[in-house]
Amino acid sequence: MRVLGIDPGLTRCGAGVIDGGAGLQPRLVEVLVVRTPAGQELHRRLLAVAAGVETVMDRLRPDVVAIERMFSQHNVRTVMGTAQAAGVVALAAARRDIPVAWHTPSEVKAAVSGNGAADKKQVTAMVTRLLRLPEAPHPADAADALALALCHLWRAPMQQRVAVQLHRERLAVVAASAGGGAAGPAGRRR
Amino acid sequence: MRVLGIDPGLTRCGAGVIDGGAGLQPRLVEVLVVRTPAGQELHRRLLAVAAGVETVMDRLRPDVVAIERMFSQHNVRTVMGTAQAAGVVALAAARRDIPVAWHTPSEVKAAVSGNGAADKKQVTAMVTRLLRLPEAPHPADAADALALALCHLWRAPMQQRVAVQLHRERLAVVAASAGGGAAGPAGRRR
Repeated sequence: MRVLGIDPGLTRCGAGVIDGGAGLQPRLVEVLVVRTPAGQELHRRLLAVAAGVETVMDRLRPDVVAIERMFSQHNVRTVMGTAQAAGVVALAAARRDIPVAWHTPSEVKAAVSGNGAADKKQVTAMVTRLLRLPEAPHPADAADALALALCHLWRAPMQQRVAVQLHRERLAVVAASAGGGAAGPAGRRR
Repeated sequence: MRVLGIDPGLTRCGAGVIDGGAGLQPRLVEVLVVRTPAGQELHRRLLAVAAGVETVMDRLRPDVVAIERMFSQHNVRTVMGTAQAAGVVALAAARRDIPVAWHTPSEVKAAVSGNGAADKKQVTAMVTRLLRLPEAPHPADAADALALALCHLWRAPMQQRVAVQLHRERLAVVAASAGGGAAGPAGRRR
């Protein structure tokens, strides 16, 4: 599975692509940071972010895009710009029919370091170690994008198992209902 | 001038197009609301919003798009979705090289009703009166989108006059500098 992790932002938008799967050592494919000048008009900045991530999507063809899910605890202006950048990335994925997953910063930190409150330095160190990189990815947005991709790689099988199990249970209920319900589990109809 | 006003949102995104200009009675061209189901995945919803506004842009070719500039005082989840919807609308305009203007809710309310704290009912009543509509636009998102367009129509000439004046002053300073500065105004160089 190829995952594109996105640390969304207007000034710097991190985009990290990794390959991995069950029992495989995750491997860095590419990491880059799309930058847009602070003085530029907002809609032009969004266009530049979209163009940057679309190039990555079309060239490296990820199977899934993992984007940071934000909260608005921080500076209002920054959060709005970040949300808008995340929105145009999600749109680019939707246009290409690539599934999108959202992970919170604490999910990402917990996935790569075991600690949901880990600091940037710790996250960067773990990303470097987990991907066996010769040196730490720079700037922090690049490391964060790779951490998001790693987080997705590990959470996805679990999320998928849950989805498959739910699907099976629904099928079982439908089969039981179709059979008249006598042999089916009681009170499980949707 | 043709203005497309956007009241951004995922559940309902209002899009109102009006024609107007100096000394002209503003005229409704079209108003509609793009809706996306709450149960749908976020990136699919953003795609539907983008598709809806892009259709309006390509069919009615506005000269400018006026979008509500939000603050995150409200429900975090709603604000994020709204910001992302606003982002994909701004991106659609940027792709078509249409200028984008942002107005806050209080600027819009003040522009159409004279009161920056006007309620929705008052805004709807004023939009209906100002555009001489036979009945009030419905739902509120439609009225808000038209209010944004009206707000832009009235604020734009003022903003433009300021921009032109600043430009002239800069030219004057450059001319004075080129002429040796003796005849130019003192201390005005950039």
